Amino acid sequence: MPTTPLPERLRAMLDRPNPAVITTLRADGQPVSVATWYVLDGDRVLVNMDEGRRRLDYLRDDPRVSLTVFDGDDWYTHVSLQGRVTELSADETLAGIDRLALHYTGRAFGARDRRRVNAWIEIDRWHAWTDD
Amino acid sequence: MPTTPLPERLRAMLDRPNPAVITTLRADGQPVSVATWYVLDGDRVLVNMDEGRRRLDYLRDDPRVSLTVFDGDDWYTHVSLQGRVTELSADETLAGIDRLALHYTGRAFGARDRRRVNAWIEIDRWHAWTDD
Repeated sequence: MPTTPLPERLRAMLDRPNPAVITTLRADGQPVSVATWYVLDGDRVLVNMDEGRRRLDYLRDDPRVSLTVFDGDDWYTHVSLQGRVTELSADETLAGIDRLALHYTGRAFGARDRRRVNAWIEIDRWHAWTDD
Repeated sequence: MPTTPLPERLRAMLDRPNPAVITTLRADGQPVSVATWYVLDGDRVLVNMDEGRRRLDYLRDDPRVSLTVFDGDDWYTHVSLQGRVTELSADETLAGIDRLALHYTGRAFGARDRRRVNAWIEIDRWHAWTDD
């Protein structure tokens, strides 16, 4: 039951560099959540991780993720996206992490000596909560 | 491999009314994450939800959760707790949600016409990320 496409108001919110939490699944199914940078890329969401992250192994085993995004410092307004990582690819030139770093910090990514991986998430469902 | 007990510095951080995201598992194992109030209650974490939340059905099916807590407005410092809901109980007097509301807003909970449920999480593992 996909609930996409995202309405424009939600896209505008997701376009900002918001605090977000991504959850992946350990091999035994235990959810593991961590803070993440993300960027809305068309109808997909791009995240990026260090090649050494266990999260990457989790995603290779089970691509299902959940992403919760806060509307800036407003902790009450948030969006939850459920979906799957449909593409994983080596971020050879660090263009992926630079895109995220520029979005969040205005600068290219600092640590350039580690290999990184891009993950694109397709959104199956979303739900938004607001104060209104 | 439990990594408890929590160090004091982490307890002090978790004691504050921080933004947090809880992830539960749908019956098919898909993770679903939403913002939540929480309070550290000894070695457990208390959360509370409306009786009508699907999240409650998910927890009855599979008690495994992940909780990511930001250190206030510092999006880089955060703690991830993995654990299980080991106790679910009706919040008959709304004492549970009032405890959370007082912690976060300084006032008793507003909506008093809905039944609510307390969920206590036992922490199996934790991981902290800081800027240092």
